Amino acid sequence: MMKQRRSFLCVGLDSDIDKLPEHIRTMDDPQFEFNKAIFDATVEFTPVYKINTAFYEALGIKGWQSLEKTVSYIRKSGKDVFLIADAKRGDIGNTSKQYARTFFEKNISGLDFDAVTVAPYMGIDSVSPFLEYDGKWAIVLALTSNRGADDFQMIQSKNGKYVFENVLETSATWGTAENMMYVIGATRAEMLKTVRKYVPDHFLLIPGVGVQGGSLEEVVKNGLNSEIGLMVNASRSIIFASSGKDFAENSRFQTKKMQNEMENHLILAKII
Amino acid sequence: MMKQRRSFLCVGLDSDIDKLPEHIRTMDDPQFEFNKAIFDATVEFTPVYKINTAFYEALGIKGWQSLEKTVSYIRKSGKDVFLIADAKRGDIGNTSKQYARTFFEKNISGLDFDAVTVAPYMGIDSVSPFLEYDGKWAIVLALTSNRGADDFQMIQSKNGKYVFENVLETSATWGTAENMMYVIGATRAEMLKTVRKYVPDHFLLIPGVGVQGGSLEEVVKNGLNSEIGLMVNASRSIIFASSGKDFAENSRFQTKKMQNEMENHLILAKII
Repeated sequence: MMKQRRSFLCVGLDSDIDKLPEHIRTMDDPQFEFNKAIFDATVEFTPVYKINTAFYEALGIKGWQSLEKTVSYIRKSGKDVFLIADAKRGDIGNTSKQYARTFFEKNISGLDFDAVTVAPYMGIDSVSPFLEYDGKWAIVLALTSNRGADDFQMIQSKNGKYVFENVLETSATWGTAENMMYVIGATRAEMLKTVRKYVPDHFLLIPGVGVQGGSLEEVVKNGLNSEIGLMVNASRSIIFASSGKDFAENSRFQTKKMQNEMENHLILAKII
Repeated sequence: MMKQRRSFLCVGLDSDIDKLPEHIRTMDDPQFEFNKAIFDATVEFTPVYKINTAFYEALGIKGWQSLEKTVSYIRKSGKDVFLIADAKRGDIGNTSKQYARTFFEKNISGLDFDAVTVAPYMGIDSVSPFLEYDGKWAIVLALTSNRGADDFQMIQSKNGKYVFENVLETSATWGTAENMMYVIGATRAEMLKTVRKYVPDHFLLIPGVGVQGGSLEEVVKNGLNSEIGLMVNASRSIIFASSGKDFAENSRFQTKKMQNEMENHLILAKII
């Protein structure tokens, strides 16, 4: 779907209720109405969507309903998109199994995401339950885009590697490039060469382009592989491009701009 | 409330729908009915409850409703208990802020927990939003009870310390013993002495006694401080003590047994 849309853009539906356009906030289900409008306006240029569950959970049952309606709307649209639950889950085995059911088993939870982001701190049994579903993916945090990434991910271990390198090296043995991906922040694009040493074939989900300041050019230069291998996420810079009645058109304009840039990179790299 | 109940037991409401007694499973809201019965039967001996959110999320909106009803029931009971959301959350700052709202701001989300478990991998800005609420707590994962704990928590860093020691040392500077606690698995009780070097005053939430095989005696020997400083969790061994109609009585019996043991330790240590 990436090659077809000539784009490796991931739009993040971090649909913070307090930031939605005023005329949307008076509707019955503002988060759903907002997401619907953004999705319809941007899907032509966007092969991947990422729903940040925190912004829905914060509203309790009502938020969980908006989340389910959004997933359901996207699936029923018939558009071929890859759908990520950005939920940063991870617990002991029997509990991670429940989280996998939450996001992957529609007949139980009502949700059918393609992938979930997973925190690696608790090790193998916290990740492996997500790998047991055919056609589903665990996207493991390796090197994140925030300032706190320095605290533990960048600890130098005795074997000369940073902790995030150990995470890549060890966790890559738990699954394959067909059921695992990694989160690598665009704000650390210079590290992408190191990352590619450990996981040349895995897809990387790259947050941090846009509001957080990462550069698309650097990401492509250091991270692209022959299958593209990148999903570059932008959230606030797209969905909150305007707060007026024209918010959807503005988000469409922003995704088109990013798609154009990405298309140029793909042509240059002879991938399309 | 611990000294009053002469107990530092935490009962984990990991109320897996598939493991509930048959006569409960036919009810309208099995998870809530089960939790209500367990709570009423055990609260005399239990100052702390921990709700494992995964087991509710797995059921989608219905599960989130059972979760909210359980929290609400416990709060309305008027019993003085400390209530933990075992949710293992953690994300960049603006997102962790939403998770803090989820579990702490009743007027927005419908939930009012006292504490949330937090994964430390993303560093300071993933934890600090949870510390901004008066009287609320972040319980940071340090050394967990599962086998995957060896994968990254036990990496030896260049400075001679294990990664979990770095987590303790660094994160302890972000808050105080009044708004932070740590998860330390009972299956690593021999490490508790090391843990206490970094955080002598913090409360420790100790999973892994019971089904996972940790020893209460070892935990007390190495982890108790003058304010008790321990919350020892048992989940499956208490709530699934029996699968018959007498499940609540059986769970009461198990909590009474653990409370007795704990009381003896507290008397021995001259804390009560």
